[in-house]
Amino acid sequence: MNATTQSASFDLSAYMSDVGRRARAAGRLMSCAESAAKNAALLGMADELERASAQLIKENRKDLDAGIANGLDAALLDRLELNAARIASMAEGLRQIAALPDPVGEISDLKYRPSGIQVGRMRVPLGVIGIIYESRPNVTADAAGLCLKSGNAAILRGGSEAIHSNQAIAACIHAGLKNAGLPEDAVQVIETIDREAVSLLVRMKEFVDVIVPRGGKGLIERVSRDALVPVIKHLHGVCHVYIDDKADDAKALAVAYNAKCQRYGTCNTMETLLVAESVAARILPPLAQLYREAGVELRGCARTRAFLPDSLPATEADWDEEYLAPILSIRVVDGLDQAMEHIHAHGSNHTDAIITEDLTHARRFLREIDSSSVMVNASTRFADGFEYGLGAEIGISTDKLHARGPVGLEGLTSLKYVVLGDGHVRK
Amino acid sequence: MNATTQSASFDLSAYMSDVGRRARAAGRLMSCAESAAKNAALLGMADELERASAQLIKENRKDLDAGIANGLDAALLDRLELNAARIASMAEGLRQIAALPDPVGEISDLKYRPSGIQVGRMRVPLGVIGIIYESRPNVTADAAGLCLKSGNAAILRGGSEAIHSNQAIAACIHAGLKNAGLPEDAVQVIETIDREAVSLLVRMKEFVDVIVPRGGKGLIERVSRDALVPVIKHLHGVCHVYIDDKADDAKALAVAYNAKCQRYGTCNTMETLLVAESVAARILPPLAQLYREAGVELRGCARTRAFLPDSLPATEADWDEEYLAPILSIRVVDGLDQAMEHIHAHGSNHTDAIITEDLTHARRFLREIDSSSVMVNASTRFADGFEYGLGAEIGISTDKLHARGPVGLEGLTSLKYVVLGDGHVRK
Repeated sequence: MNATTQSASFDLSAYMSDVGRRARAAGRLMSCAESAAKNAALLGMADELERASAQLIKENRKDLDAGIANGLDAALLDRLELNAARIASMAEGLRQIAALPDPVGEISDLKYRPSGIQVGRMRVPLGVIGIIYESRPNVTADAAGLCLKSGNAAILRGGSEAIHSNQAIAACIHAGLKNAGLPEDAVQVIETIDREAVSLLVRMKEFVDVIVPRGGKGLIERVSRDALVPVIKHLHGVCHVYIDDKADDAKALAVAYNAKCQRYGTCNTMETLLVAESVAARILPPLAQLYREAGVELRGCARTRAFLPDSLPATEADWDEEYLAPILSIRVVDGLDQAMEHIHAHGSNHTDAIITEDLTHARRFLREIDSSSVMVNASTRFADGFEYGLGAEIGISTDKLHARGPVGLEGLTSLKYVVLGDGHVRK
Repeated sequence: MNATTQSASFDLSAYMSDVGRRARAAGRLMSCAESAAKNAALLGMADELERASAQLIKENRKDLDAGIANGLDAALLDRLELNAARIASMAEGLRQIAALPDPVGEISDLKYRPSGIQVGRMRVPLGVIGIIYESRPNVTADAAGLCLKSGNAAILRGGSEAIHSNQAIAACIHAGLKNAGLPEDAVQVIETIDREAVSLLVRMKEFVDVIVPRGGKGLIERVSRDALVPVIKHLHGVCHVYIDDKADDAKALAVAYNAKCQRYGTCNTMETLLVAESVAARILPPLAQLYREAGVELRGCARTRAFLPDSLPATEADWDEEYLAPILSIRVVDGLDQAMEHIHAHGSNHTDAIITEDLTHARRFLREIDSSSVMVNASTRFADGFEYGLGAEIGISTDKLHARGPVGLEGLTSLKYVVLGDGHVRK
């Protein structure tokens, strides 16, 4: 089937069921694949991507041309583009995944029980993982690599605007799998641009064990609403830095500046700064000066504007906003309790930090803030799989069940119990 | 509000939202409650249950009388009944939960990263847990105890046939919470018998973090179908014992007998026995004799019936049946591969065991069987929170995400990341 010349009689439902059935069969084989084969496949895919670089760029050109014709904006076209450097970076990502330890099959906590049986837990793949993502074609290689290494089969559904690029990348992935003696169905890229394919994918409970949507809030909300399969989701990041009355000034300035300005468009970027009233007069003016130099628009509460008269007034809506832009809302609070109240009321359970030298305040913040990452004297920008030592991440979960925070290989596995006896029976 | 004299103007939706809001508020307090207070509450509840024994039996009598009037069968009436021994056992269960280590707040894997930050994970409560269960009133105390110890708030919805018993137990729970200085809203028992309350409970995503249904397959399927909140579910147990061609005869007889006959009505009871053809002639006749003496009806495949001519013929439907009764289906297989194929095709991912002295067969079975508990030379009846050393269990999960197998205190918690720095910023 060719994505661009689909016949009217194409049966989408039958096609998706077939994809699911093949993924389930491949998943069973992948769950028992040896590390050496999986690593050979990853390294083979990396080589193949580099070898096919010219072809990838040619296929990507078709997507770019269609994107221009369809009026995609410059930012989207930039995300869509493949060039030699980006292809090398995809290959490097796969080689890094090959170098990670294999999580599958590890048995932990194997202990003798009073009955005489030994009970432990074995780390095992989840089975079949569906990944739904938007324009960046590099996700195709990243997601395939992580699912493969963790012993899962993957069904990948990229954006329709990247269909030629994704299929060219898929060819390299399949070559890598085949050369390593692993089933090509272990990574399937959905070949139709029909949006209904996503609705079917997220409802195939018999074939798919978990869905990981990667993209904007709209995509994730739509997937979560339709899904019958469990979703590892990350809705949005309204991250806070709270500068405590016991903060060190230099650390406060460094972290609050970095958390906002190191990158504006990421989910772990600070969106609201909270400052204890007793230090606001000292901290806010020099900090505002740094933000102004970086071109960050400041929106403050009434108390903030007393210290920073040229900031704009923040509205109630600002406290819930994920700007993903050089905009920062600032609120002056009475102290730790009011800061934590604010985070509970307006945060998104993603990442929140306190700047303090006070041990009791730090302990309370770590315990009481219910976010996937809670930090003391460190920039929220550290909330990332690579920074945490996971080696790679397939996304950041703001859910509470299963995986929370950056999701790496471990988040694509679960634990089953293993019991060893010698003819033991229950009394 | 009184359960039996509800006014027509009762606004169920407002009532449930109020329950949810109060649970959320109590959950926040419970997440930071100290172990000493939680244990004092558990011990206080236990004392209160014993002190109120006569009152509990009186309230339970109302439920029993109504049950008799409504024509409940003897088994259901037995499950519903409270007596002094059962009340003492509930109290003992709470004291055992008090004696377990507190999982909340434990920080693990705290390591320095190359950037200089320390990254670890803290075990934290899930928040608000909804438990939906059927006639046994002791679940009210068990579930409350486990949720409380793990720092969660609980919303309990028992069967309408046990409403007076459950409310009397709830009064003891609230006394225990109050005396320990903890919020009474930490454990709420739904006071209406309106079935619509369940549908509302499982959809209150803003107030409830996870639903644990405890009951028959019908209840669990209904809850799973309606739920918007994630469900920790255990659908059914079609458990297998496979007697390998390398099995020790004595172990095979002991385990296969125990797995079926130690108790018939539990989810970890064997429902299908698989026997390697090469040992069937030796194993099946003496084993069938044991089953016959225990009154177990045998249903065999054609090859089985060649060895056991007086067994009934098994139909295709038998392989998928959870009998929960003295009935056993038996299939003779070629060997390990066909046994594993059968389990993949007909098992319910609950608990499966191999009887073998062969290390390679044992290793393959442990790795390749995708069930929440996989056993070698041990009875499937061991799949249980107490036997595994979890101290207590709120249920057994056959799901793959989050908790798998018996779910104890740990399954009612999740891990968040904690990051400690000294003014660290991301480069």
